[in-house]
Order: sequence, then C-alpha cells, then structure tokens
Amino acid sequence: MSLQKKIILTGDRPTGPLHLGHYVGSLKNRVALQHDYEQYVMLADVQALTDNFENPEKVRASVLEVVLDYLSVGIDPAVSTIFLQSMISPIAELTIFYLNLVSVARLERNPTVKDEIRQKGFGLQVSAGFLCYPVSQAADITIFGAHLVPVGQDQLPMIEQTAELVRKFNRIYGDTLVEPEALVPETAGRLPGIDGKAKMGKSLGNAIYLSDSADEVKRKVMTMYTDPEHLHVADPGKVEGNMVFAYLDIFDDRVDEVAELKAHYQRGGLGDVVLKKRLIEVLNAMLDPIRARRALFAQDPAQLLEIIKKGTEKANNTAHATLARVKEAMKIDYF
Amino acid sequence: MSLQKKIILTGDRPTGPLHLGHYVGSLKNRVALQHDYEQYVMLADVQALTDNFENPEKVRASVLEVVLDYLSVGIDPAVSTIFLQSMISPIAELTIFYLNLVSVARLERNPTVKDEIRQKGFGLQVSAGFLCYPVSQAADITIFGAHLVPVGQDQLPMIEQTAELVRKFNRIYGDTLVEPEALVPETAGRLPGIDGKAKMGKSLGNAIYLSDSADEVKRKVMTMYTDPEHLHVADPGKVEGNMVFAYLDIFDDRVDEVAELKAHYQRGGLGDVVLKKRLIEVLNAMLDPIRARRALFAQDPAQLLEIIKKGTEKANNTAHATLARVKEAMKIDYF
Repeated sequence: MSLQKKIILTGDRPTGPLHLGHYVGSLKNRVALQHDYEQYVMLADVQALTDNFENPEKVRASVLEVVLDYLSVGIDPAVSTIFLQSMISPIAELTIFYLNLVSVARLERNPTVKDEIRQKGFGLQVSAGFLCYPVSQAADITIFGAHLVPVGQDQLPMIEQTAELVRKFNRIYGDTLVEPEALVPETAGRLPGIDGKAKMGKSLGNAIYLSDSADEVKRKVMTMYTDPEHLHVADPGKVEGNMVFAYLDIFDDRVDEVAELKAHYQRGGLGDVVLKKRLIEVLNAMLDPIRARRALFAQDPAQLLEIIKKGTEKANNTAHATLARVKEAMKIDYF
Repeated sequence: MSLQKKIILTGDRPTGPLHLGHYVGSLKNRVALQHDYEQYVMLADVQALTDNFENPEKVRASVLEVVLDYLSVGIDPAVSTIFLQSMISPIAELTIFYLNLVSVARLERNPTVKDEIRQKGFGLQVSAGFLCYPVSQAADITIFGAHLVPVGQDQLPMIEQTAELVRKFNRIYGDTLVEPEALVPETAGRLPGIDGKAKMGKSLGNAIYLSDSADEVKRKVMTMYTDPEHLHVADPGKVEGNMVFAYLDIFDDRVDEVAELKAHYQRGGLGDVVLKKRLIEVLNAMLDPIRARRALFAQDPAQLLEIIKKGTEKANNTAHATLARVKEAMKIDYF
C-alpha cells in the first residue's frame, strides 16, 4: 500500500485561446482532480508544431494565453505542474527509442491518425512528424510515469498505442515503464458549437472563449442556433438540436426549471430571446469568477513565466529520472 | 575570409570491431583530415539500436572496442572529438523538429533506405525508426554545423535528404543551419571480403579486423579467394577477381613489383602461397604500429572512458549552441 498519489498527464496544444468546450471537456475535471492526483499539465508546443510548423508565431503567442486560461479556471500551480513540452528533452529522446519499437504499418493503421489525416486533407503528403505523433504522445505520457490519461472516446487508440509501446519496451529491456490507462469522463459527448456543429472550434468560428467578455458572450448567445422553424413565440419549438437547450442542459444546474422550459417551448408560447437571456446569465455567472482571476493573473506576466519555469523544472526532474532508468535498461548508460 | 576550420562529421555504428574495409574506406582518411578540419567522430549507438534494439548488449560492448580501434589507427582525441550519440539530447530534439518537414512518401522513396529495407528483409514491417533514420542522420550532421560529410557513393541520397531538410528549415524559419556537402573519397570502391564477396562485413565472416593478431591475419590470408582454376603453380592464373591481387593493389605501395607479379601470375609459374606470404607481410607491417598503439591504450580503460567523456562534453556544447539557435528561429525560446 503506497501513499504515493497516482500520476495524471494532461494538457493542450497551444494553438489558440481555450473555450467552453475545453472547460466542460477537460479543464473542470483537472481542477477537480488536482488534489487527489499528481497532475502534470503539458503545454504541447512541439505537438502543436506538427501541423503548425509554418506558423510558429501562433503557437508561441498561445502559450501564455493558455496558461492564463488554466489559472483562471482554477488550476493551481502549487499542486498541478504546468510545463512546456519543448523544454523537456527526454521526451524527444524517448520518442526516438520508441520509433524502433513500432512499424510504419502499425502507425498507418492508427484510427485516430487515419481520421485526422483525412480531415486535414494530408493524403500521401502526410509528414513523418504527423504519422509519428502517437509515438511522441506515448513518450509524453510515459516519461512522467503517468498512470492515467484523461481522454475522450476518440483518443482511446492513442492510449492503446502507448500501452503497446510500453509492453514491448518492458518485454525487451525489462520492467521499466508504467503502462497508462485512459480516464474517459462519464459525461461523454462534446460541447457543440453555437452554430449547432458537432464540434466547437476556433477555426469554425463557433466558440465561446473563457476569455470572452460578458458582452461577447451575450452577442454570441444571441446568434445561437435554435429551431429555424420556430418563427413566432406562439409556435411550438424543437428542443432536439436546439443549442440553447443543449447548453442549458450542461451549464444550468436548475434541472427542474430547464425541464419545464423545454415543455413550454415544445407546447409553444416561449420565445428564443427569453431562453437566450437565461443562458447568458448562467454562462456569465459561471465565467465571472474566472474573469476575475484572469484579471488578477494578467497583471503580472512575469509571474506567469515564473509558473511555467518552475513547473518545467519539476517536470524535467521527473523526466530525467525516467530517462536515466530507460537508458540503464537499454544499456546505454556509460558514465 | 575566415580562419575557422571547416567542420566534418563522421563516425560509425558500434556493432562490432572495425576491419580493414573501415580502415581504407574511412579511418585512414580521418587521420589524414583531422588536422586540417574540425572533426567530430560519432559513436552512433542510437542509430545502431535502430536495427539492434533487441540486442543492446552488442552495441554497448562495441563502444569501447571501436574507440580503441580509433585510437589505434591514430585518430587523435586532442584534435578529433570522439563522442557518444546517445548522450547528445539536441540530436533527438532536432530530429523531432525535422520530422515535420518531410513527408512519409519522401522517406519511402529514399534509395538507400529502400535498398536496406530490401536487404534486411524488413518489408512492410519496417520500423518507424528505420524509415526515419535519414532524418536522425540529418540531425546528427547539422547539429554540429558540419560542412562536409565523408560518405561512399551509396550514401549520397542521405546527404541529399539532409540538404533538403536544411533548405526547408532555413526557408521557413530563416537562415539558421548549415547545408552540408558530401565528401566522396577519390579512391572509390569498397574493400572486398577475403572470400571475394563485394563487401567486407562481420556478419559475412569475411573480414580482417584491425584487432586481429599477426597469426590471425596469416590464417585469414591463407584462406583467401584467388583463382579456383589455378590448380598448379605452372598454370596461368587470373588476376581479375583474385582477392590477393585486389588487396595488394590497395595495400602494397610497390606498384611496379605488383605489376610484375600480376604478369608472372598470368603467364603461369607463380604460386598462390608466394603471393599470400607477401600480402601477409604487407598487412602485418601496416598493422604492427596499430597493434602497438592498441596495446598501449588497452592498458587504461579509464582513460578511454575519459576520452569519450571529454569528447561528448565538447560535442554537447556545440550541439546545445545550435539547438538554441534552432529554438530561437522556431520561436520556442521562451526563457
């Protein structure tokens, strides 16, 4: 029986500000888990460069922005280790070792990578970096000895790939690395965009950001996709596919009231504007303390850098200790 | 006009002792070049693991052996920097960055890699590490800012791959890295094995090692492939494809005498044994000072480790300086 806390690895690709989808999908969870687990939160700048290599400015500019998002939602650097991937050289070294343990054919079969290659239209010109990113991800996870990795259902093949690599490494070189498990959140499902598209995303222009002002939230909610056939207040309206209800279901704790509103809307006699005003209130009430913390942290950019610096230092200590064990196992620990 | 010496990167995969093929193909050249160039000599243990990952003991055991070979032939650690690839983390980091700049399709078209995949019988199960090794090699070369890389004709596609990566990096991120050139030795052609096979190699069992004793050299030369139809001394013999003459051409400086011997052999009346004795003398005369130096260095294994340690330290300084410039260009130099 060890009193050691289990280790979690999580993080984001710094390619833009974080939005409500990130909040409900992962950030909230991180805040909840950070005291019971040892949590490493990675700013995956190297991974962000795999498909933004021609646009490094975007990645760089996003780093501080994302850290500000983290602190604003309540990720506490005193208990969570926030660090920069590009400053942890053992990740690159372990990636190179892992590349020998996986065939090109196996990487090409990875369903997540296959999907993304199709979505991004890379075709045959897919970069070696992109094909190999599950291997880099395996290194990210295992260099910190993570037991658990919070991921969505669609990312399970990545964790399976990591587990395969760990098993192969341990079989060849002796028991050295921790085989991680996926931690899939119970409340499955992504937050849809305000336009009703399945995914909220910066490139889709359908996101509400954690850094949006109260007015921006108001403006965005007022444009939200509801029921295009609900033309008059008196008309019966559809709840299914109506983004305002989709959001209320997630963000409004007064479940009974929301159920009544749904019934009223379906009968007719309830206008979109009333509902939207309610959602604006709910969202802004949630975002207000986040905004207050942001304002506080934003005053002191030097402190932000200091937080990343300290986290990166701690992450490097852990990573170098793992790498030393890896090199010992591989018999490349000469002196 | 800079007085700075040009930089050379060279090295070997430590997978066994070095042989006469290595000597005439590269080692001799390194000794000749080391005063006019700044020469980095890499013990490519990570690369050796790409197809020996299940046999790390072999790689490890070969490292000291290869260094002893280097010192024995006269590579001088006071002017040449002998270092271990696995201890230079910037190589792994630069490799990861390069992977984004090359397509899988391009790597699959690399003629050298294609040949080796066929020769080694990897087929579809080729590892990602093997497919990507030209990218690692590009990082090896460019992290030291090498201007020149001594290679055989068959390795030219690797240097072309490196040059492509450098050009792409410099185009995207600004002029940062040195585009290397191949330095192909004038005396082309590989030293054949003692059995007449085109290539001398450990796995083929047809090699004369730099560490072979005078008796071993004698024994091996006596089994050398000559002309299987030259049964009696009086018979005319063939020079073409006769390994003894192939070796005399390379190792015996007395060109006129060798020409006379060839004519005599072709006329008939010259036995193989006479020729083989001559070759044994020539080889042992060349190997004797190498053996003497080996005996000296072998007495002090701690000194060998010290040489690698010092070289690795110097190589790391150079590599980290390049990596810092790379990260600055890529805008991932945060603090």
